[in-house]
Amino acid sequence: MKENNISSSVIKRLPRYYRFLGELKKQGVSRVSSSALAKLMNLNASQIRQDLNCFGGFGQQGYGYNVEMLYGGIGEILGLNSPTKAIMLGVGKLGVVVAENMNFEKQGFKLIGAFDVDQNVLGKTVAGLTVLSVEKLEEFCKEHKPTAAFLCVPSAAAPELSEKLIELGVTGFWNFSHYDIAIKHPEVSVENVHFGDTLMCLSYKIKTNK
Amino acid sequence: MKENNISSSVIKRLPRYYRFLGELKKQGVSRVSSSALAKLMNLNASQIRQDLNCFGGFGQQGYGYNVEMLYGGIGEILGLNSPTKAIMLGVGKLGVVVAENMNFEKQGFKLIGAFDVDQNVLGKTVAGLTVLSVEKLEEFCKEHKPTAAFLCVPSAAAPELSEKLIELGVTGFWNFSHYDIAIKHPEVSVENVHFGDTLMCLSYKIKTNK
Repeated sequence: MKENNISSSVIKRLPRYYRFLGELKKQGVSRVSSSALAKLMNLNASQIRQDLNCFGGFGQQGYGYNVEMLYGGIGEILGLNSPTKAIMLGVGKLGVVVAENMNFEKQGFKLIGAFDVDQNVLGKTVAGLTVLSVEKLEEFCKEHKPTAAFLCVPSAAAPELSEKLIELGVTGFWNFSHYDIAIKHPEVSVENVHFGDTLMCLSYKIKTNK
Repeated sequence: MKENNISSSVIKRLPRYYRFLGELKKQGVSRVSSSALAKLMNLNASQIRQDLNCFGGFGQQGYGYNVEMLYGGIGEILGLNSPTKAIMLGVGKLGVVVAENMNFEKQGFKLIGAFDVDQNVLGKTVAGLTVLSVEKLEEFCKEHKPTAAFLCVPSAAAPELSEKLIELGVTGFWNFSHYDIAIKHPEVSVENVHFGDTLMCLSYKIKTNK
């Protein structure tokens, strides 16, 4: 598979392909043409062929794509088959909702620890894990070596905490805070979930759609 | 202000400009050069100038940008000064966290109603609103005319509900479900918040960063 220099816009589209193919697989569909997939996903067929070509292509002309192979192949590209060990920082209301409602293992992660500073939360069980004090973070990371951190802390706590986590070997952040980790640390992988930013974009779209 | 044909990638960057400028404003900074802003935001100065030029430009050569004017101008472009009326559909755990922790008015919206089907939730107060039965949706929309809907329902409930909302005059969706509203309704504005998709992208980034 050729996996070099794939544009980030292609990568961003892969989870959506993966979801739609998962649906087709569930429905027992074994193959799909780029034009049928295009119709289903509201894309154009040539874009689909171009996107999937980045990875060496999974299709055959005149046959279409083997749904199971394509689904499996995209899952492999996304690294979903070998889960990354992750810890959650901040188990407030948002942290709990995220921890208990996501199917992390299907999305490439295994949640192995949860940390907070709030005495009212410590010792509680969230997603099957006992919430530990942040004071135990160093010891935990040295023993269990998580690679990813899910940051559900207030923005004010994020700078110091992310520094510490990077020192402790974390190379990827799923960041719900507004702190911009990548500015100081361009070497780490970051996905930001900025609710407010998407709302503002929606506001723009609604207003200009008129 | 020239506001036509602005690429969606520029629009997506505007909330981040807005946040950084808001910080500068709070710190009492009255003007900023494109190069100083670039350094702060980890962008390059020419991109900033290009982005802000789409809207007719707010800066003056040799002076830089007036922080307050630029902040106000971007807020106006994003439509934050005249809040869009919104209702929330689905007030489960996620809905509650979202409703109670967002500062909607700062992001261009005013939440005026909350709906659910769960008897255990109806009548409760969330973000100052009494949760109503979905059966009252039609009556409510006819009276209060919300333009936006925040969809925090399971994906299975989303197709029927979004159809109904569009019929009732909703033109924009903040969509937490995996249902793809835009496929059937390209005419409405949609911002998807797909937790799982961002996780899968993070998985890819972590794996390929090595």
